[in-house]
Amino acid sequence: MRIALGLQYDGSAFCGWQSQPHVKTVQDELERALKGFTTVPIPTVVAGRTDTGVHALGQVVHFDTELEREPFSWVRGINAFLPKTVAIQWAKPVSDTFHARFAAFERTYYYVLYVHPVRSPMLTGRAGWVFMPLDVEAMRAAAAQWVGTHDFTSFRSSECQAKSPIKRLHQIDIEPRGSFIHFRFRANAFLHHMVRNLMGCLLMIGRGRQRPEWASEVLAVRDRKAASPTFMPDGLYLAKVGYPAEFELPEPNLGSEPWSDIWTL
Amino acid sequence: MRIALGLQYDGSAFCGWQSQPHVKTVQDELERALKGFTTVPIPTVVAGRTDTGVHALGQVVHFDTELEREPFSWVRGINAFLPKTVAIQWAKPVSDTFHARFAAFERTYYYVLYVHPVRSPMLTGRAGWVFMPLDVEAMRAAAAQWVGTHDFTSFRSSECQAKSPIKRLHQIDIEPRGSFIHFRFRANAFLHHMVRNLMGCLLMIGRGRQRPEWASEVLAVRDRKAASPTFMPDGLYLAKVGYPAEFELPEPNLGSEPWSDIWTL
Repeated sequence: MRIALGLQYDGSAFCGWQSQPHVKTVQDELERALKGFTTVPIPTVVAGRTDTGVHALGQVVHFDTELEREPFSWVRGINAFLPKTVAIQWAKPVSDTFHARFAAFERTYYYVLYVHPVRSPMLTGRAGWVFMPLDVEAMRAAAAQWVGTHDFTSFRSSECQAKSPIKRLHQIDIEPRGSFIHFRFRANAFLHHMVRNLMGCLLMIGRGRQRPEWASEVLAVRDRKAASPTFMPDGLYLAKVGYPAEFELPEPNLGSEPWSDIWTL
Repeated sequence: MRIALGLQYDGSAFCGWQSQPHVKTVQDELERALKGFTTVPIPTVVAGRTDTGVHALGQVVHFDTELEREPFSWVRGINAFLPKTVAIQWAKPVSDTFHARFAAFERTYYYVLYVHPVRSPMLTGRAGWVFMPLDVEAMRAAAAQWVGTHDFTSFRSSECQAKSPIKRLHQIDIEPRGSFIHFRFRANAFLHHMVRNLMGCLLMIGRGRQRPEWASEVLAVRDRKAASPTFMPDGLYLAKVGYPAEFELPEPNLGSEPWSDIWTL
């Protein structure tokens, strides 16, 4: 039987998703907890391999097992073996045609940015921080130029393993609220560091160091050196992974975020 | 010259405010940073000695110095020597009649409670968690019985060093919002563990295990054993310390909290 899990984690506690020797990763913690609960080793497949410091609100994984458990029993049982920085939110039996990675047709990321002259300790590792005001309209004008199907080579890290740099970016929303600016990125898939690199360029434009049209120019040259430095991971959240409706997966539990009333997915 | 500072910290990183041997405290970090910036040792006086795990959004301290610095230079200079879990928000020269502790006439604490069947990793150390729904009206009816000047011995920890158990509790507000319930407590002063002990009783009533009238009964017997266990510190924030208007201290920067639009102080 194939089981899909929705999970959340605080990325600041981990060196990213993927198992690696000598460092703490989410995959290692999850597979250790699965083994703790079931007593057998069970490999997992993830929707999106997040990087060091990147959080997940709506990560999805699947695994195969012969064990029969009620869905909420998987949730409670695995959570009992997980550290406080990771928690399963839901579990659901799915057909063998489901695949956490290959069945996903889109991903949504949030970036939470704190704009204030002084940093906030409660937001360390949870929001990006800039101390200068930003021009939201200029950033929106820039972001609009990236929407569509493009070669995003300029925003791709040298470590990226994706087969193609061409992605379909559906939407970038930018909403100021109090001392925060919330960014939402929705695409069929993202390249390695793509959101953080797009954020780096948006901040250059928001600070008035570049014109909004520069966004198109950077995209057009297909050269990572043309773009801004990669912005800090602190405010980056994998919010949702989209699957065909036939799988009937639950919505991610964004209600766990105090600022979740800004957008519904 | 006397300088007042507003500061914030993530209490989950510390064994409370007060300096102690062999453990990490906020006071030690602040005095180390002050010495780092000024090169001389400078003792500090705090408004409210918070406990292990308790956060501060609007903590106030003062210190005396012969050094002349612009207010924002104190902020930037001290912050450069502080860890990411602590940050000065403002600095202001005050008259010698100001005293962070004795000039304060009231304190406001927030408790942020997450109510959901499954815990959230992003809220670990930042919000209390209960997995069963709570009856907000019952908790409001209970809380109303504590407002006024009372002997709060039933809600006082055995380690409390306050001279008197009699405090004037001005206000308890309880506001549900999405998966959260926000509590606000305002009093002239609080006993050790008082808010966490009041929270413990409110949750018993909210879960229907006690009637709202039980709140008065626990108060009346003046016996710590009559009350509920001390609730977890994770969601407790020292939000504001009130001083006479003549000192013209800045408002605490609650804008650093994504959920700050619920209440203005």
